Amino acid sequence: MEKEVDKIIIPKPAIVRLSTLFVLLENLEKEGQTKIFSAEIGKLLGVPSHTIRKDISFLRQAGTGNGYEISNLKNIIAEYLGFNKYKKACIVGMGRLGTVITTKNGFYSNQYAVVAGFDNNPKKLKTRPDMEIYPMDKLKEIIDREKIKIGIITVPQKSARKVANDLIECGIKGIINFSPVLIEINREDVFIRNIFIAGEFNILSALISQYETNKL
Amino acid sequence: MEKEVDKIIIPKPAIVRLSTLFVLLENLEKEGQTKIFSAEIGKLLGVPSHTIRKDISFLRQAGTGNGYEISNLKNIIAEYLGFNKYKKACIVGMGRLGTVITTKNGFYSNQYAVVAGFDNNPKKLKTRPDMEIYPMDKLKEIIDREKIKIGIITVPQKSARKVANDLIECGIKGIINFSPVLIEINREDVFIRNIFIAGEFNILSALISQYETNKL
Repeated sequence: MEKEVDKIIIPKPAIVRLSTLFVLLENLEKEGQTKIFSAEIGKLLGVPSHTIRKDISFLRQAGTGNGYEISNLKNIIAEYLGFNKYKKACIVGMGRLGTVITTKNGFYSNQYAVVAGFDNNPKKLKTRPDMEIYPMDKLKEIIDREKIKIGIITVPQKSARKVANDLIECGIKGIINFSPVLIEINREDVFIRNIFIAGEFNILSALISQYETNKL
Repeated sequence: MEKEVDKIIIPKPAIVRLSTLFVLLENLEKEGQTKIFSAEIGKLLGVPSHTIRKDISFLRQAGTGNGYEISNLKNIIAEYLGFNKYKKACIVGMGRLGTVITTKNGFYSNQYAVVAGFDNNPKKLKTRPDMEIYPMDKLKEIIDREKIKIGIITVPQKSARKVANDLIECGIKGIINFSPVLIEINREDVFIRNIFIAGEFNILSALISQYETNKL
């Protein structure tokens, strides 16, 4: 029997909100909360509660209209969104940021594993107990062999776009870019998330400035 | 004369998009592009072009309807959004991630300066040539003295919420949280940006999974 979950098409912004909601629910569950209402979720995520109810309505089994059981909602989100489908990631750029990110200290959850690192600098090619580090010319071979779908970019700005293209050519479908440049990808089958720290400073500065202005 | 720019109220989601657009324009300008149309911006930001036109229309001088001069639009965004108003930041947690983030390698732009670091571990209290590192009990004193409005959190998960509260009590108005926990702040005068790496993995995994499912 074909599973119901395979037939649902969820819009991209809803996927992003539901993924964030999942993390939120994990936190609340750890703190002992068992039930949540859409109004509370909306407040936590900073979106109207009707948006959240609509998002959750895509997950058919989850809709109760009268609050959600946290553990149930969490499991349904994970199932519908396929959180367990692509667990392996690789990282390009084993400098200091790449090293910090791949250290098992909770920066990524236990669900995911960064199984291979790549660097052009021969000095960085030391094997770590938890992960193998390869030269760049092994990129295709390792990604194919390990069936890796997610790539992390922690190279300097000037090489970031080239590395993104290389990863895509090797079959990577999702990229987390930490390099300080916004990378856009014009392919519907590849997704990118830019973690742009300077942009975050701008956003905060603008929000503070706006608040102070309106208040006066 | 009161400046026009001080009177505009721009909605929060528009502020976030315009701040990201600013970074995008900086990149395009470096690459030699001088003009851009809303359709291209929409595509790059992944939002409809009418949303972008509306966002830009809040910046009254910028609207032309017939494409935008990149350098002009960039300057107007910076002026309206007050990017130059709050330049100083501090960071709590001088572990490896905190150290990487505050190293001047481009992770934050030259517009901003992390002027003080804080840590509870006496071993971390070495002064660096570019920034002073203080014990936690100096938080209020330094934030007041330096008039710091933005705080970065790079402490372990278990202390992150307490540190956020401490920063807010000391007068911080904007927080960038790198600790692997979503922090929500129920105050309209304080803004937070959660950089949650595990959440990014979830989002990518969900987007890839969704694409593969629809394609089949």
